[in-house]
This record gives sequence, C-alpha cells and structure tokens, in this order.
Amino acid sequence: MEETIVAFQGEPGAYSEEAVIKMFGEVKTYPCRTLSDVFEALAQHKATDGLIPIENSLAGSINESYDLLLLYPFRIFGEVVLPVNHCLLAPKGATLDSIRRVYSHPQALAQCSEFLKELGVEAVAVYDTAGSARMIAMERMEHAAALASERAAELYGLTVLARGVQSRANNYTRFYAIGTREVPRGEKNKTVLVLATAHRPAALFWVLGAFAYRQINLLKLESRPIGDRPWEYLFYLDVAAHMSDSSLVEAISELSTKTVSLRVLGSFPMAT
Amino acid sequence: MEETIVAFQGEPGAYSEEAVIKMFGEVKTYPCRTLSDVFEALAQHKATDGLIPIENSLAGSINESYDLLLLYPFRIFGEVVLPVNHCLLAPKGATLDSIRRVYSHPQALAQCSEFLKELGVEAVAVYDTAGSARMIAMERMEHAAALASERAAELYGLTVLARGVQSRANNYTRFYAIGTREVPRGEKNKTVLVLATAHRPAALFWVLGAFAYRQINLLKLESRPIGDRPWEYLFYLDVAAHMSDSSLVEAISELSTKTVSLRVLGSFPMAT
Repeated sequence: MEETIVAFQGEPGAYSEEAVIKMFGEVKTYPCRTLSDVFEALAQHKATDGLIPIENSLAGSINESYDLLLLYPFRIFGEVVLPVNHCLLAPKGATLDSIRRVYSHPQALAQCSEFLKELGVEAVAVYDTAGSARMIAMERMEHAAALASERAAELYGLTVLARGVQSRANNYTRFYAIGTREVPRGEKNKTVLVLATAHRPAALFWVLGAFAYRQINLLKLESRPIGDRPWEYLFYLDVAAHMSDSSLVEAISELSTKTVSLRVLGSFPMAT
Repeated sequence: MEETIVAFQGEPGAYSEEAVIKMFGEVKTYPCRTLSDVFEALAQHKATDGLIPIENSLAGSINESYDLLLLYPFRIFGEVVLPVNHCLLAPKGATLDSIRRVYSHPQALAQCSEFLKELGVEAVAVYDTAGSARMIAMERMEHAAALASERAAELYGLTVLARGVQSRANNYTRFYAIGTREVPRGEKNKTVLVLATAHRPAALFWVLGAFAYRQINLLKLESRPIGDRPWEYLFYLDVAAHMSDSSLVEAISELSTKTVSLRVLGSFPMAT
C-alpha cells in the first residue's frame, strides 16, 4: 500500500499541520507555500492527500479554497474541526515583562489585540504564525515573542508565556481532506455540491426545494462569482445526507432540470 | 444645505475615489485609512456620506463591508459600478524597457501577473494602488513603476506607460453609497436585507419562497458567520424590488415568522 503523505499550507507547526495530525494521525507531511501548491502537490503525486482550511467560525469562508476545489478534480473525503488557541511563545528564559514586540500573521494579531494592548507591546505582521515562531527561535531574538500554536513551541524549542490569548471564544477552523480516497459512510454524513442555477426566476428557491421537500437539511450555502459573467454566481451547498441515500440521489436527479451545471465535490462523515 | 463630504477608503487617486466622483460628481472627499474609519467618519459627522466597495466581479464580496453594515445604523442609498482598469505608471522620461520593479496592492499585482511576467520585472507588494503611485512620484524612484488608475497618474504627475494591463476582462467593482440620505425610487430598484433564519428545517427555502411566490427576483445571496455561534450564518439578500412596492412589504411581513432577525439595509435605484 502506498505511504500516506499529506500536503498542507504553511510551515511545520502551523495550525494546518495540527489538523493533519488530528485527521490522519502521525503521518508524513508535505508543507506547501500556498493553497494552490497543495492542489499541485496532489496533481503531481508528491502527496497522496491534502488538507485545506475551508472556514473559520469568526472570519468566514476561505474563498481561495472554494475556488481551487472547482479547478481540480479531487474529492473531499473528510473534514476536521480545530480550535484555534493562540499562545505567546518566546525563547527560553524570557518573561512576560521582557517582551517588547510580538510577531505573527495579521489575523492572529487582530484576534489577540486586547491581550497585546494590555501587555503594551508592538505588533509586527509576518507571513504566518508558525513562521514567526521559527524566526524568533532561529534568530534568538530578544524582547520578542510570537503568537502561534503550542505545537510550534515544542517544534522550535520555545517557552509558552501565555495560553489562549485570543479576545473571542468560539474560534474554530474547519478543514477538508481532499484527494482520491474512497471512505465508507459514517453515522452522520455531509455532501458538498457546487452548482450554477438555470437562468429563470426563483431558480435558487427551486434548488433548495429539491432538498427541503425530501427533509434533507441545508447546513451551509456559499456563493462565489462566476468570473466571466459579472454578478452571476456559483453556489456551494453543504447538505446533511450521503450520496448513498436514495433521497439525495433523487434530489440531485431533480436538480438536472434546475441547474446548468452541478458537481458533487464529496460525500463524507461529518466532523463531530 | 449641508456641504456634501464623502468618506472613502484609500489615498487620493484610489479606485474608490473615482467611484465617489462617478456617484456624487466633483465633491469634497474624506480619505480614510480603513473601511472601519469610513463608518466612523460618518458616525462622528466628519463626512455626510460614505462610499464602500461591496463586491468585485472576479474576487467576490468584500466581507468586511458586509460586517460593518451590520454594526452601524447607516442606510445604503445608492450603488455604482466601476470598471477596474490597471495602468502602469512611472516618472516622466521612463520607458517600458527601463522598468525593473513594479509596486502595487497584492490583488492588483495578481490581476496583472501575465503582463508583469512578460515584462520580466519584479513585483513588490505595498499597501494600496494609489499609494504606490504616490511613493514612486514623491521618491522619484528610478526603474520603478506602479499599477494604479489613470487618475492616479494625473494626480501625482506620472506617465502612463501602458493601459488595461490586467489579465482578465470583466473586472468590475461595485460600491454602495451609505449614510442617512433619503433618495427617490428609480426605474429599476434594489433592496438589501440581512436576516437570520428561524431554527427549523428548510428555513432558508421558505425565506426565498416569500420572494419567489411574489415574483420578486433574488439578485444575490451572501452568507456570513454569526461569530458567537459557530457554523450558523447571517444571510444578506439583494432583491429586485423597492420598499415602496406592496409585494416587497408583504414578503417582509411574511418573513417575520420565518426569521429571528431581519433588517432592511437599504432600498435604492439599481446601478445601470
């Protein structure tokens, strides 16, 4: 059997890598610079699977992931939800009082702005969270700390000065596992579809009706622009059913007359 | 009568400023550093009106604008669509061959990547498009050019070396005029609503039904997370009707039983 190698976006110690371990266990990983590189790693067989962030509970959908799912032929075969728990990391020996500057990804800095204000430090934006931890460790920077995961502290030999320093609770990121794997259905399942509605009045209403009349719950609806046709949209729908459910098969068959395009991106067990 | 002062995000010469002129004519403007500052300028009566980007035909919705519309009590009273036409600007005397580095906002650089590749230059990301033009003009930078609007060239005394250098056609940005103004209905009108559906099966289907059964066209549907409740969403709906249409009044009255919250963000003449 082929060895599992999972591509993710970010440096070792990134939240995405933590999500890989939660989903796949301790497997070989293939860190990529961009989300697009994750899909390319799969296309070029440098990785067997990929893990991409699709949504954050505070910031919303990751549009680039949705756009890339459309461009490549891979299937979503699973999902995993990770709590985002920012920690303040510094070289060994540092104390909270000694910190003057805090480095991290702009979104992490924004999410911890109250803590940083109270600490009275300067916030410096860098490329990513794990990268800021690596930089501080490698350059042995004094009076500097990073906002990153606890895992990044272990990887780069840094001390955790504070845990969970984000201002708002309920900060979760949801990831999709992508590739060519077939997985069995679970107890609760989800199917992700992308479609363009037919050009007629109430088209989206009738699309939702195909699910509603069959008691299939809609979990999420996301729209993305169709680049060549301004102000027209593709819809990504998450529904609470599996492709092996006859009700979903019937709904999708009905949709063939109500859509101009429809693709099933994946059908898989829901994250718990 | 109070003098019109329109707040926008960006430097003088920004695409947003061009949109202000298209919407309001030659009025006094109030440039702001962030979108949030535009709303604050209105709240503090430093500006009478604001103009905010809501959607780009290639990149999609501007989430921050949607989130801010919810936080402030202002009304959308109009919209304007601007073609995005990137130009390569350099100090007088420069030629295409002399350019080594091109500065602009990352999104503009990405939209012109094919042109930049062919030109064989280095792309350097800066805060915004008009700002890159201003920097090049003020610092009299040699071998450097900016990607910005033709208007920025005029403002900062730069030469236009090339026009319309974006890779893809159909690049438009749509803006909303916001404030407290009352405007008469136009020939074709649009109403923007934001709502949270009731917690019951098929809730969104029945919301769309309130419009569909009254032949009110749905123009756009955008979802945004409800921060405190992971994986629950607010929906922003654009419908082709005016609040003075009895059909829309009826639809909204019907929605009171199908939603847990509903707010009309504005009702105004559609951009042509």
